[in-house]
Amino acid sequence: MAKANKLKIIPLGGLGEIGKNITVFEYKEDIIIVDCGMTFPEDEMLGVDIVIPDITYLIKNKDKIKGLILTHGHEDHVGAIPYVLKKINIPIYGTKLTLGLLSTKLKEHNLGDVELNTVKAGDTIRLGEFQVEFIRTNHSIPDSVALAITTNIGTIIHTGDFKIDYTPISGEVIDLNRFAELGSRGVLALLSDSTNVTRRGYTMSERSVGDTFKDLFSKADSRIIVATFASNVHRVQQIIDAAELYDRKVVVSGRSMVNTVTVATELGYLRMEEGTLIDINEMNRYRKDELVIITTGSQGEPMSALTRIAFSEHRKIELFPDDLVIISASPIPGNEKTISRIINKLIESGTRVVYEDLAEVHVSGHACQEELKLIHTLVKPKFFMPVHGEQRHLKMHADISHSLGTPKENIFILENGQTLELTKNTANIGPSVQAGNILVDGLGVGDVGNIVLRDRKHLSEDGLIVVVVTMSKQDGAVIAGPDIISRGFVYVRESEDLMEEARCVVKKVLSECEKKKITDWATLKSNIRESLRDYIYEKIKRNPMILPIIMEV
Amino acid sequence: MAKANKLKIIPLGGLGEIGKNITVFEYKEDIIIVDCGMTFPEDEMLGVDIVIPDITYLIKNKDKIKGLILTHGHEDHVGAIPYVLKKINIPIYGTKLTLGLLSTKLKEHNLGDVELNTVKAGDTIRLGEFQVEFIRTNHSIPDSVALAITTNIGTIIHTGDFKIDYTPISGEVIDLNRFAELGSRGVLALLSDSTNVTRRGYTMSERSVGDTFKDLFSKADSRIIVATFASNVHRVQQIIDAAELYDRKVVVSGRSMVNTVTVATELGYLRMEEGTLIDINEMNRYRKDELVIITTGSQGEPMSALTRIAFSEHRKIELFPDDLVIISASPIPGNEKTISRIINKLIESGTRVVYEDLAEVHVSGHACQEELKLIHTLVKPKFFMPVHGEQRHLKMHADISHSLGTPKENIFILENGQTLELTKNTANIGPSVQAGNILVDGLGVGDVGNIVLRDRKHLSEDGLIVVVVTMSKQDGAVIAGPDIISRGFVYVRESEDLMEEARCVVKKVLSECEKKKITDWATLKSNIRESLRDYIYEKIKRNPMILPIIMEV
Repeated sequence: MAKANKLKIIPLGGLGEIGKNITVFEYKEDIIIVDCGMTFPEDEMLGVDIVIPDITYLIKNKDKIKGLILTHGHEDHVGAIPYVLKKINIPIYGTKLTLGLLSTKLKEHNLGDVELNTVKAGDTIRLGEFQVEFIRTNHSIPDSVALAITTNIGTIIHTGDFKIDYTPISGEVIDLNRFAELGSRGVLALLSDSTNVTRRGYTMSERSVGDTFKDLFSKADSRIIVATFASNVHRVQQIIDAAELYDRKVVVSGRSMVNTVTVATELGYLRMEEGTLIDINEMNRYRKDELVIITTGSQGEPMSALTRIAFSEHRKIELFPDDLVIISASPIPGNEKTISRIINKLIESGTRVVYEDLAEVHVSGHACQEELKLIHTLVKPKFFMPVHGEQRHLKMHADISHSLGTPKENIFILENGQTLELTKNTANIGPSVQAGNILVDGLGVGDVGNIVLRDRKHLSEDGLIVVVVTMSKQDGAVIAGPDIISRGFVYVRESEDLMEEARCVVKKVLSECEKKKITDWATLKSNIRESLRDYIYEKIKRNPMILPIIMEV
Repeated sequence: MAKANKLKIIPLGGLGEIGKNITVFEYKEDIIIVDCGMTFPEDEMLGVDIVIPDITYLIKNKDKIKGLILTHGHEDHVGAIPYVLKKINIPIYGTKLTLGLLSTKLKEHNLGDVELNTVKAGDTIRLGEFQVEFIRTNHSIPDSVALAITTNIGTIIHTGDFKIDYTPISGEVIDLNRFAELGSRGVLALLSDSTNVTRRGYTMSERSVGDTFKDLFSKADSRIIVATFASNVHRVQQIIDAAELYDRKVVVSGRSMVNTVTVATELGYLRMEEGTLIDINEMNRYRKDELVIITTGSQGEPMSALTRIAFSEHRKIELFPDDLVIISASPIPGNEKTISRIINKLIESGTRVVYEDLAEVHVSGHACQEELKLIHTLVKPKFFMPVHGEQRHLKMHADISHSLGTPKENIFILENGQTLELTKNTANIGPSVQAGNILVDGLGVGDVGNIVLRDRKHLSEDGLIVVVVTMSKQDGAVIAGPDIISRGFVYVRESEDLMEEARCVVKKVLSECEKKKITDWATLKSNIRESLRDYIYEKIKRNPMILPIIMEV
C-alpha cells in the first residue's frame, strides 16, 4: 500500500501567521504532534481572549496519536495545550523548564491527570514509528530544542524557534555539530523558523543586553524598575546579576513574572545569592537606591503590573519621579501604540524611561538571515519547508533556500491544513485537512464565530437602536409603543430631536402597515428597520444596528 | 496694563500627541492661529472617523482673530479647517500648493466664501500687532515654510514640520541663512518639530529614494505598482522621473492621489513630459513592461486603491503575479498590522513586494537629532518650547535643548490648552484655556463622547442581551414575555440551553417582584440586570450589555 508508506507533515497552525504553532507528523498508523500554541486575536476579533488551532483532524485520529512533543515553553508553542487536553488526553514530552512552566498552567485549568515526560537535549525517544531526537538550541527562553524526527522514510529536522548565541547566558551554545552530523548523513526535509527572516545579518547575543543593564545600573542613583517578558529567564538572570553587582535587592511583580521566577528558581534555571530576592512587602525597609523591581507589562498590557504602576493603580508599588524605568522588550506588532502610551504616562510623572529606541535593552530570540543560512547549509536538506511566519516571511525564507542551492520544486510553502507527503525521494502537496482558528472568549471555546464578530463590529462602530412595540395578536393594532432606546449611538440628551423624529418615522411605518393590514411581523420589522436606517443615515451619516422587537398580546 | 503687553502662545493641539496641530498667538487685542490640523482616532475611539481640536477659546475670542497661517498642506496641519470655518470665518494665509490642496478640500465641504491669501517663502505679512515672515523649509510635501512671528515683544520662530535636505527634489534647500540671520539678531523663543527627536543622526535626502526607484525600475520586466502618500509630491515626481527614464507610461489610481497629481501639475509642482500620464482606461493599449501605476494605500487603508487591487476588488486594475509592488512608505504607528496584511495578500498572489524592510524605498520628512540641534544652534533662542510630539518626544527635545546650553528654567513643555506668557525678558506658564478632542463621526461633530464610547466598547467586547416584558400598568402582572434577544454574544443556535436558562432567570425575578408587589420599573429593571449578569458571568465568564425594557399596557 503506497499510501501508507508516505510520511505526512500537516501544519495545523503557524503558517501564514506568527503564533499558534502546531505541526502533525503522520506515518503509517502513528501520529506525533510538535507544539500546540495559541495566538492573540486580530483587531477584528472583538472581545476574543485568545485563538487556538482547530484540532478536528486530531480528534478524528486520536487513536493514532503517540505523543505531543514540545520545543520550548512559550505561549505560541504550548498555550493551547489545556484546551486540547480537555478533548484528547495525550502524553507530553518536553525539557524540564518547558514542562515546569506547563505544569503551572495545567494546574490553573484544573487538569491533573496528564502524563508529562521530561527529556533533555541529546536524548532520543521512540514513539511508534517515530524516533525523536532533541537538539539543543538558543532562544529567548532556556531549555529550547530542535527536533530530528526519523522514520523509515528518512530524517526531518524541525528547528523550533531558535537563534545562534555563541555566548549564551545559561545553558550552552546551540549544538551546531549535531546539525552538521545529521546534515552529513542526509536530511530529507528541513522545517525552519522564519520569524526574523526579513532581517539582515545576525541577531545579537543576549549577553549584549547585560552590558547595557550594568551600564545603566552603575549610573542610577535611585530605584530601578525593569519590565520584560516573564518567560525570558535569561533576561531576568541578567537583571538579577546587575542588581547583585550594584548591591540592590530584587522585588518581583506581576503574576506571570512571579510564576516564572518561582518555577525557574526551583528547577535551577535562575541563580542568585541568598537574600537577593525580597518580598514586595519588605520594600520599605530599603533605600530607593537599594532596589530593583522586575515586572511584567513590557507590551503595555492594560492589566499588567507596569501599567498599574504607571497609572498609580498598583496596590503595593508607587511611582517616584526619580525612578529609572527600563522597558527591556520590542513591541510585538500591534502593540506599538499601547507601549507608547505607557512610556508617555511614565515620562509625564517625571520618570526617566529607557526603551529600545534609546539603548540596547533588548535583543530578539529569533535567527536573522545569516543564521538561517548557516543552519540550512549545515543541514543540507533535500526538501525545504519554511515555518513560523506570515506569507511574506515564508516566501523570503523560500527565496533564501533557493539562493543556497535548493531547487525551486523542492521548496514548499504550505498553508495551515495542507499536507506535505514525503517518500524517500519525493515530496508533494497532498489532500488538505480541516484547520483554522477557534476563538476563546471567557469560558466559551468556539461559540464566537463570524456572525457574532460581525455584530460586535457593527455595534462597536455606530451602536444600537432598539425599537419595541406591543401589538395585538388579533388585529395587529398598536397597543403600546413604539419605544426607542439607543446605546453607543449619540448623546441622547443632545439629540432629543433626532430621537423624537425617529419615533415619528416608526409610527408612520406602523400606521401604514395597519392600513395595509400587514400582520406578518417579519415584514413589519423589516419595514421598520429600512425606514429608520434610511432616515438615520440621511440625517447623520451613521449606520447603527437597528433591532425592532414586537411583543404580541 | 502689564497683562496686555504679554505675548501668549496657546497650543490647542499637537502637544502630547502626533497630529491635530494648532497654535494660537495672542498679543494685545489680536490673535493669529498657526495651522489647524486633524488626527486619527485612538483605538478606544470606536467608530470615530477623525478627531479635531476643541476651538471654544477661538469662538469666544473670534473678534480678535486676524488670520490663520498655514505651514504646509498635510492633514495634521490643515485637516480641521473645514470644521472650524463652519463656526468662524477667518482669512487664511499659505503658500501656493498648500492653498491649492486646501481648495479641493473646501470644495468637498461646499465651503465657497473663504478668503485665501497666497504667500511665498521670503514674504512678510502684517496681521494686526503681528508681523509674520515665511521661511523656506524642506519636508515631505513641497512649499513648506517655517514662520518668524514678530511683535513688540520680540521674534518667535515656529519651525512647522521640517527636515534639512541639501539635495531636495524640487524647490530649494531650507533657508538656513535666514534662520542664522534671525538667530544673530536675537530670537525670543523657538517652537520646534519633535516628531523624529528619538532618532539619532540625520534624515536621508529624499533623493536617495529616487536612486532605489531607478535601480528597481531598471531590473523590472513587467508592470510596476508604487504605493505612497498622496501628498508626497516629491516622491511622485521621482516615480515619474524613473518611469520616463525607462520609457514607461504612468497611471494614477486612488481619489486623493488623483487630486494631488492634478493640483500639483496645474500649479507647476510636478513636471513630466507630454504623454507620460495616461488615463487608467488606456492601460490595455500598452504592454505590462511599459506601465507604472502610482496608487494610494501605503498604510493599508481598507478602502484604498492598493487594498482593492490586493483583494481583487479594484474595478479597473487586476493584479498579475509578475507585477512588482513597491510600498514607498513607513507604517504610521498603529498601522503595522494592516500593512502586513496587504503585503501578505500581495505575496500570496505571487507578486514580488518591496517594502521598507527590504530596500531604501522611504525616507522621513522630519528632522532627526542632529538636524534639530543645527536649527536650535542657528536660532539661539532665549526660550524653547518643543512642539509636535508625544510626551516622550517633547521631553527628549527639551533635554537636547538643555544640552545645547538653554537653562532648564527657560524650557517649557506645555500641554494642550496651557498658555506660555512672554515678555521681552521673561516667560512663564499662565492660566489654561479649554482644549481637547472633538470627535467627528459621520455628520456628527462632538455628539460622540465618553458615554457613547464606553457603550460601544462594552458592546464590542461581549455584545448585548435585550430583555423585553409587557406588564400591566394597574397591577404589575406580566402580560407578555419575557423575550430575550442577543446580538454579538453567542451563536444562539449552539447556545439554546443557555438562552432558555437565562429566560428562566428573568422569569424568576419577575415572579419574585410580583410577590413583593414591586411596581417601580427602575427597581425591576435593575433586579433583572443584576440577576442575569451574575448568571451569565457564572456560566460563561462574559459580561454582555444587558438592556431590560418594560412595555406598559
